[in-house]
Amino acid sequence: MNAYVMLGVFQTTQKLRTALRRLSRAGRPPLDLQMQFLRRGRCPRSVALSRKLHVGADGSRSSPAAAPQRLPFSRVSVEDLAVFRKILPGRVITDPDLLQSSNEDWLTSVRGSSEVLLRPQTTQEVSQILSYCNSRNLAVNPQGGNTGLVGGSVPVYDEIILSTSFMKNILSFDNIAGILTCQAGCVLENLVLYLEERDYIMPLDLGAKGSCQIGGNVATNAGGLRLLRYGSLHGTVLGLEVVLADGQVLDCLSTLRKDNTGYDLKQLFIGSEGTLGVITAVSILCPRKPKSINVVFLGCETFDQLLKTFQLCKGMLGEILSAFEFLDSECMRLLNTHLKLPNPISDCPLYIVIETSGSDSKHDSQKLHNFLEEAMTSLLVTDGTVATEDSKIKALWSMHI
Amino acid sequence: MNAYVMLGVFQTTQKLRTALRRLSRAGRPPLDLQMQFLRRGRCPRSVALSRKLHVGADGSRSSPAAAPQRLPFSRVSVEDLAVFRKILPGRVITDPDLLQSSNEDWLTSVRGSSEVLLRPQTTQEVSQILSYCNSRNLAVNPQGGNTGLVGGSVPVYDEIILSTSFMKNILSFDNIAGILTCQAGCVLENLVLYLEERDYIMPLDLGAKGSCQIGGNVATNAGGLRLLRYGSLHGTVLGLEVVLADGQVLDCLSTLRKDNTGYDLKQLFIGSEGTLGVITAVSILCPRKPKSINVVFLGCETFDQLLKTFQLCKGMLGEILSAFEFLDSECMRLLNTHLKLPNPISDCPLYIVIETSGSDSKHDSQKLHNFLEEAMTSLLVTDGTVATEDSKIKALWSMHI
Repeated sequence: MNAYVMLGVFQTTQKLRTALRRLSRAGRPPLDLQMQFLRRGRCPRSVALSRKLHVGADGSRSSPAAAPQRLPFSRVSVEDLAVFRKILPGRVITDPDLLQSSNEDWLTSVRGSSEVLLRPQTTQEVSQILSYCNSRNLAVNPQGGNTGLVGGSVPVYDEIILSTSFMKNILSFDNIAGILTCQAGCVLENLVLYLEERDYIMPLDLGAKGSCQIGGNVATNAGGLRLLRYGSLHGTVLGLEVVLADGQVLDCLSTLRKDNTGYDLKQLFIGSEGTLGVITAVSILCPRKPKSINVVFLGCETFDQLLKTFQLCKGMLGEILSAFEFLDSECMRLLNTHLKLPNPISDCPLYIVIETSGSDSKHDSQKLHNFLEEAMTSLLVTDGTVATEDSKIKALWSMHI
Repeated sequence: MNAYVMLGVFQTTQKLRTALRRLSRAGRPPLDLQMQFLRRGRCPRSVALSRKLHVGADGSRSSPAAAPQRLPFSRVSVEDLAVFRKILPGRVITDPDLLQSSNEDWLTSVRGSSEVLLRPQTTQEVSQILSYCNSRNLAVNPQGGNTGLVGGSVPVYDEIILSTSFMKNILSFDNIAGILTCQAGCVLENLVLYLEERDYIMPLDLGAKGSCQIGGNVATNAGGLRLLRYGSLHGTVLGLEVVLADGQVLDCLSTLRKDNTGYDLKQLFIGSEGTLGVITAVSILCPRKPKSINVVFLGCETFDQLLKTFQLCKGMLGEILSAFEFLDSECMRLLNTHLKLPNPISDCPLYIVIETSGSDSKHDSQKLHNFLEEAMTSLLVTDGTVATEDSKIKALWSMHI
């Protein structure tokens, strides 16, 4: 559940679909590699093993989204397990109880029936596993923190789960340029803590940061709260290391900020959700840690006023604006009812959350004060509260799940 | 000549080459479309028509970079010209005098021998031309403002020059989100002027802005002065419309900021230099126009001090820092000698240019004052001058060619 809707998030996949169809009609297979892996990674085996969809007290039933039949991939044999155990001593999980949490998504809405979970620690191990699976025609499901809410991180049937959870080393940090290079399995919050000590922050922040992994963030092109300020991962990710379906390692792990040499192949993997390869390492540009953060919670009457507030905000808060999100009264009711989160201001049809981050708290406060005065006197907003303390800021953001 | 070197610009293409080799070794052609167009667009015809390299007073000689022989592309016939004239009435140039400036690069270092220059106005016309050229096996050289300094924008031999200069319409501007959509041939400076009236700026700025075109900027992944603040075009370009080699129109002209649906195909065209298709339209995210701009010119003794100044600058100027570049004493000597530009401060081994852009001039001045005081008292810099007026700012930036 995402109680807030970021301005401009309403999106359509239609154009991409059209584009893909056009490329496909052209008879050229530029996405051949992608599709091959897509087919390998997401194919059903049989109805008996089909993905389950939980429907509350009634138990579970087959997901209507599941494909009708499994393509002829091999099944994991005793010999396969022996090979995996040789590559990953002590890191091949076959115990169904231990596998359950990896087969099931965070909302427990869907679950697969994988019988093997592999936990590589190095790129070389990922390469060996994929190379072997490719030669044996075994389907593979890459998995990060398994925090997604759309069922994309768990197997459909019996795919081998390739977890990046044990790939959690930070490889380097350039303190001058602010560029972090780390393995894909680093948990976002651990990176945040690592950077905090060095006076930097991650360019993205998510509600799931305590469990989600940077590799998964990149694979799903996660946006998060700071997109408005620091932009998408297409801009902040400087390099990727990826293992392709047949085990080849694609080294695009650049740490160069202004790289305009040739095709930017790594971009294809940002948002590809594991269908083109397994991301094993990431280099990412990190902003300096802001010295001052403020959060404002406002109420307004109409969507038109909300848009005008956004424009005013962009003009008056300018470079310190770091987030602008909104929710409606129905969202607020759900938050009250189900999460017992109280409305911090009086009832309004629409609510706005604005965050500022800057390097000088006096300057930021003054800009914020001027903006609020203008917004109130011009009757764009009807009520509001400001948070400057950490605990109050967290309380306001807690509504963003 | 680029007198300044942006911090971190030292780059290598080795990794990309390795990656491409690896993909190629895999026997899979994910870049098939690209390569096909690459072969079409850049192939020599014969030694007699080979690209010339000017070598000053000695006249010209064959460029050592030219490929030894031309692949068997067709030559432009009278019938071809008739077809072009039907598609583009009055916009097919064959007069050698008029063609000269399009055959030659800005530095007059290299020149091709194209005999036809086409000037489409619409995407449909570009599509018809490429479709026809594809069917006739005619080589095509897309060209924007022809302001590049590396000879990449002119033909190698007799390729047809497809100019985007007549595609200069602004298609839309979203005043709330700051998203501009325009044809590829819009001159950067015209876009800057258009946006200025609407209180916005372009996210990139280049010395060549008076002639360079946005399509060419995207095709070459231009960085420019504002990269430090607003990031690369991979982050700011939201959508592209591209005509592929066979005339198909690929519509990825999204204006959605937070688009994480599927593969981001448009990214492949950013920096592809016309080898994958012809960019016909661009949508780009534009920042608000800053209310206050300051430029500082500083001198320092060692590279270590320069890096420390950069770190201090990131910490103290934070969100208002918009450019940080440097030049050495040899660059300064060349600027003095050849461009008669005086050194604005005393002689130093290294010089730094810092630009700030913000929404409150008082706040910006105060931040800048604090930073300069700290940099001077800690002996990181030895001399400096500050410019706040437009003319003085331009004078300082004039050294950046």
